[in-house]
Amino acid sequence: MSSKTSPQPPITHDLGIYECEIHLKFNLLEEGEAMTDRDQLLELLLDAFLCGADEYLEPIHIEAKASPISELAASPQMRRQLIRLRNSRGLGAGI
Amino acid sequence: MSSKTSPQPPITHDLGIYECEIHLKFNLLEEGEAMTDRDQLLELLLDAFLCGADEYLEPIHIEAKASPISELAASPQMRRQLIRLRNSRGLGAGI
Repeated sequence: MSSKTSPQPPITHDLGIYECEIHLKFNLLEEGEAMTDRDQLLELLLDAFLCGADEYLEPIHIEAKASPISELAASPQMRRQLIRLRNSRGLGAGI
Repeated sequence: MSSKTSPQPPITHDLGIYECEIHLKFNLLEEGEAMTDRDQLLELLLDAFLCGADEYLEPIHIEAKASPISELAASPQMRRQLIRLRNSRGLGAGI
């Protein structure tokens, strides 16, 4: 038989940077007063959406996408974190 | 003085239907495997965004808007709920 050691397939937790986009459109039954606070609007709308669809909220459009991008397009902080994580995994695999 | 009774301004909890839109764009450091499950992608991205910006996530574009729309543009379920709520408030005010 040729399978002497039969190595486990490598764990392919391939870390990377992804450009992500979320686009949500929905009708919401709400009090006008709540909608006037521009600073809180995003939080209010996200909370409402996360409650799910019912007679207070009806979704019109829901879109989520993620595409891998070059690491060079990310911030230095993010690139450093990526190197740190890959490095720590590499050390773990070498033990 | 002309202010005899100085009536309190009415509580303007004006219920209405709003067309809401959320548009989020951000870079995310993530494992490729997690991004392949299309059904879970929206939930994963929303959870990541709600954790806030750090070395794993950098916002590119954040937009939230809400505009009042005609009640007739909403679903019958939502219109009924609106009538129900307004009606219950009207009864409360009459006591």
